[in-house]
Amino acid sequence: MELLDAFRWRYATKKFDSNKKVQQELVDKIVEAAWIAPTSSGLQPFEVIVISNQELKDKILPLAYGQEIVKDCSHILVFAAWDNYTAERIDNIYGRITEEREQPADRYQAYTDRLKTNYLSRPAEINFAHAARQAYIAFAFAIAEAATLKVDATPMEGFINEEVDKLLNLSEKGLKSVTLLPIGYRDETNDWLASQKKVRHSKQHFVTVID
Amino acid sequence: MELLDAFRWRYATKKFDSNKKVQQELVDKIVEAAWIAPTSSGLQPFEVIVISNQELKDKILPLAYGQEIVKDCSHILVFAAWDNYTAERIDNIYGRITEEREQPADRYQAYTDRLKTNYLSRPAEINFAHAARQAYIAFAFAIAEAATLKVDATPMEGFINEEVDKLLNLSEKGLKSVTLLPIGYRDETNDWLASQKKVRHSKQHFVTVID
Repeated sequence: MELLDAFRWRYATKKFDSNKKVQQELVDKIVEAAWIAPTSSGLQPFEVIVISNQELKDKILPLAYGQEIVKDCSHILVFAAWDNYTAERIDNIYGRITEEREQPADRYQAYTDRLKTNYLSRPAEINFAHAARQAYIAFAFAIAEAATLKVDATPMEGFINEEVDKLLNLSEKGLKSVTLLPIGYRDETNDWLASQKKVRHSKQHFVTVID
Repeated sequence: MELLDAFRWRYATKKFDSNKKVQQELVDKIVEAAWIAPTSSGLQPFEVIVISNQELKDKILPLAYGQEIVKDCSHILVFAAWDNYTAERIDNIYGRITEEREQPADRYQAYTDRLKTNYLSRPAEINFAHAARQAYIAFAFAIAEAATLKVDATPMEGFINEEVDKLLNLSEKGLKSVTLLPIGYRDETNDWLASQKKVRHSKQHFVTVID
């Protein structure tokens, strides 16, 4: 299937069939898409928490304003970004890059020095906002991969981030939740949105061409 | 090709072959992917400017700290988000949705009232930050589509946003640039990154599973 067809097929599922679970192999592929996504300077400043535990999904329900998709879905992927950039985090990933590419230890020294100069002087909230934007790229890659696998997924910002952070002990890991991605299979009969036309701005409005 | 293979194939191209242009049909598909991407409440609060004009690309060069990819690439896609949410913008897209779905005029009245209550009381910079995150989803969809078409693309945040806004008269349209996406074809021989292993955090670090 062409990717554009998968993009046309997908929609923000509003009602999941709670009896249908996504196979582990497919969950792994969706997580892999998030994992391989590009990020600014390759820092990959976020993590993904994959929740299939029903009790935990039920606990998220009130934190997501009662939106039943979080309890009826098969799995929830939580995208959580670094609460700040630190020298340790920058050195950690560049240590790994140096090792995996079998390069001299100081290969990226000047580059990481520059990153530290840029990032470590900024307030944590600016750095978190930047890290969160990187998480959105991975979030989108996961949505795209799910669509090609005919797995339904609902991009969600509507939840109480601080409460989800507490529930999952994210602050201990220096993380803050950014988005949720419930995945599963649509309950087409009971989903009001399933039959609705996908509407966007007109192409004339959306695109400006400068040849 | 499986999407994950396309994700593995792609990389942030550092050297484009300036003689190779991307066919219009493929550019259109990449823009289509950005256009069809999901956004919070369906507001689609951004636009895309597609630049193939060489003179304009050359003018962007110094605004992108001299990174030659912006002049050597075939096209630059500029992702520019709304500088703020307004009642007019919210009514505009929901008017269109109502029309395209042939629904009663007041179908989304309660919903748009709620959006206005939430958004219009917030500072412009908070709303812009939110709109920019939506643009990142579309940005990622465009990167994904390009990869499936074997078109190289380089996600870029490193440019002087305010200067690009001025050059493209974006503030007149109530827009602010968020990211650039130069597309084209890699000059593999002269691109130091082309042969480098893609490195990410270990899966153990990246993923937490709660079954």
